[in-house]
Amino acid sequence: MSIPTLEEIRQAALRIKPFVHRTPVLTCQTLNRMVDAELFFKCENFQKVGAFKFRGATNAVLSLTDAEAGKGVCTHSSGNHAQALALAATNRGIKSYIIMPRTAARVKIDGVKGYGGEVILCEPTLHARESTSADIQKKTGALFIHPYDNLIIITGQATAALELNEEVKNLEIVMAPVGGGGLLSGTALATRYLSSTTQVIAAEPKEADDAYRSFKSGSFVSSENPTTIADGLLTSTGEITFPLIQKYVTDIVTVTEENIVAAMKHTWERMKIIIEPSSAVPFGAILENRSQFKGKRIGIIISGGNVDLANLPW
Amino acid sequence: MSIPTLEEIRQAALRIKPFVHRTPVLTCQTLNRMVDAELFFKCENFQKVGAFKFRGATNAVLSLTDAEAGKGVCTHSSGNHAQALALAATNRGIKSYIIMPRTAARVKIDGVKGYGGEVILCEPTLHARESTSADIQKKTGALFIHPYDNLIIITGQATAALELNEEVKNLEIVMAPVGGGGLLSGTALATRYLSSTTQVIAAEPKEADDAYRSFKSGSFVSSENPTTIADGLLTSTGEITFPLIQKYVTDIVTVTEENIVAAMKHTWERMKIIIEPSSAVPFGAILENRSQFKGKRIGIIISGGNVDLANLPW
Repeated sequence: MSIPTLEEIRQAALRIKPFVHRTPVLTCQTLNRMVDAELFFKCENFQKVGAFKFRGATNAVLSLTDAEAGKGVCTHSSGNHAQALALAATNRGIKSYIIMPRTAARVKIDGVKGYGGEVILCEPTLHARESTSADIQKKTGALFIHPYDNLIIITGQATAALELNEEVKNLEIVMAPVGGGGLLSGTALATRYLSSTTQVIAAEPKEADDAYRSFKSGSFVSSENPTTIADGLLTSTGEITFPLIQKYVTDIVTVTEENIVAAMKHTWERMKIIIEPSSAVPFGAILENRSQFKGKRIGIIISGGNVDLANLPW
Repeated sequence: MSIPTLEEIRQAALRIKPFVHRTPVLTCQTLNRMVDAELFFKCENFQKVGAFKFRGATNAVLSLTDAEAGKGVCTHSSGNHAQALALAATNRGIKSYIIMPRTAARVKIDGVKGYGGEVILCEPTLHARESTSADIQKKTGALFIHPYDNLIIITGQATAALELNEEVKNLEIVMAPVGGGGLLSGTALATRYLSSTTQVIAAEPKEADDAYRSFKSGSFVSSENPTTIADGLLTSTGEITFPLIQKYVTDIVTVTEENIVAAMKHTWERMKIIIEPSSAVPFGAILENRSQFKGKRIGIIISGGNVDLANLPW
């Protein structure tokens, strides 16, 4: 599969439609006034499993042949992709094997099990994760579904920006946070196809700015000991996502931890929606770089809403 | 003005339309499964000022003649009605005088001022509140707008249920929390007009069950030292709202503090929306009285989302 076409993104949207929510686009005058811009929030925090990840996972699972599907799917993740793949597999009636570090939060392990996934715990090291994953694939024949460095996943994630751009016309900028780059790549593709003059701007925590440094230097830099509260954005971009980002993304801006938390709190307080720290990164970046965004009409992908309510950053 | 007609509720909806949000109706499979019913949440937490109160206040302010409006409006409230009336008045370009106890939270006083209201602080007693209010009315000629015991306010609040019943057909039950009864009266009228077989069921905290006791005994009982977390529901029903409730409401059910908090937490965690404790009372009542609601198709008015994020009940 080469770079997903608009037609392929539209097919993915049709394929996943019976299983995913068409999430609302919300606006807030108070947030607009705060930054003197017009913001349109595509609320994937209201997506099933609480995150956009369910779009890509569903597209991947539904794209399998019956023979492939029969052997199940596997991945390693302690985040939203784990739960998303488990539910997508259960919806198709197939097995999912989710490799998680034994240090993962109990609530996340229970989440995966609740969606019908089989959890395999391993030591919290890269080596253990990869060898456990190889073992499972060998033993079961399950297909490995990478959380972001996978064109079928990217095509699925692109359907959020497809809906946003179809619902809200004439956006001057579309923003998404960047971690591994699956959401960002898909967002960039869909946006450019539907509106070639719209800028696609990624937002990244300063404390995990590998994509920013890669993008600015023109060569891949990996994430080293990132320390951001935006725990969905700890990973580095991949072999597939980084070239897509180089080609289709206009700019990457960074944001301090302080502004991520401020953006998250403003969104909770004024929009009355629960977003996870990673989802506050684009609005935080606007707060921090006002002149770049002033007066613009901006679409923002809110990536998810999975937060530990007993452990809030204020 | 006698009991608001359907035509008057429709006129109110048109009158306030340029100023209020048409709020979304959200659903959640997980919450449905939890109680084995089909729930449709009308999200007035997304309303301007964060609460349904803005509908009634806007209807009241826009219904004034120019001569009346020129003298401004006043009320006493430390809750959502205070901010709602301030913004509604500012939107019409008129003055609002909001009498608040000097013990009110700083954030609420600042909120009213932020919406353009003039705050008059008084001692936190009924006598001080009423004498200060009388003084202001005498001095300014401002019209007093009662938070709930006022037919124009009730007609405005009815527009939320009007939208809900028009958007979601064949509801078997529509629920709203009950405090003073303005939202409940409006909800009952609109629902009965549009769907005469739909039951209207109010939910009330056990720790502030004056409406329940009034309804069951058939004669008005006032609220005495209520101690519920649902701080929007501390007031008693009024001379106008209680007879409307007696005539148009099917039943009132009560709920423990424990189930109010559980319902609030489930809603935050699974629906990713911020609702205030008062808004969790109907779902809490369903959790507590499952057999009454099992298998039903139920509309619920989420009354508001104004919560102190630094002081959550878990």
